[in-house]
Amino acid sequence: MKEIREAIKKTNLKFAEIFKRGDAAAVAALYTSDARLLPPDAPMMSGTEAITKFWQGAMNLGIKEATLESIDVESSDGSDLATEIGKFTLSMETPGGERVAQTGKYIVLWKRDGGVWKLHADIWNADALA
Amino acid sequence: MKEIREAIKKTNLKFAEIFKRGDAAAVAALYTSDARLLPPDAPMMSGTEAITKFWQGAMNLGIKEATLESIDVESSDGSDLATEIGKFTLSMETPGGERVAQTGKYIVLWKRDGGVWKLHADIWNADALA
Repeated sequence: MKEIREAIKKTNLKFAEIFKRGDAAAVAALYTSDARLLPPDAPMMSGTEAITKFWQGAMNLGIKEATLESIDVESSDGSDLATEIGKFTLSMETPGGERVAQTGKYIVLWKRDGGVWKLHADIWNADALA
Repeated sequence: MKEIREAIKKTNLKFAEIFKRGDAAAVAALYTSDARLLPPDAPMMSGTEAITKFWQGAMNLGIKEATLESIDVESSDGSDLATEIGKFTLSMETPGGERVAQTGKYIVLWKRDGGVWKLHADIWNADALA
């Protein structure tokens, strides 16, 4: 469990680093190839291409940073599946150049894929109306 | 797995039935006593009292029906945890008495609690801006 928690924490840090660089394809590579993304106010989507496009679109809309903080990670012994509940902060730049933060929460279903823990399903929502 | 899928399907039907009756406490009883609720545009909350209040509030705001459809259920052999990805439809009554439907998607983390599968964490969001 401690190992899985560490692997997830590391990947969450990598997610934030890559996101800040604006590399949507590298963000999508942290997901399994058939992962499902369940974003607010958009239909469920799946697969690397759709996930790359989604994050590219979010970056284009002014989302500059995404940080992730695990609250609870669970996994059965020896299982290749784990669940994570967490909180996120998005940092957005408005068209006027102002920085605003949005906080929210998420659940990620993780899958061990060729020895690497990857996001396999990812859903989130905001803490308050924007 | 088939057994777990059936148990979850049954509880989802029960959720819809109870919801339609407007019994928020009975809806909350389908969750574990320390379950987490992660609703859109509200902070994360946990426990039976908070969950009862949340669903009571949603019913007071005009949500009349909530139907749930499993898309994918996963569980490791012998585990007391399962994950579900699904789609929901909420049927709301506007102050003018009109019925409108909102569709969306969810992830529920289920936990076997005294032999009964209960919702242990529940997050959802809408498919489109309201």
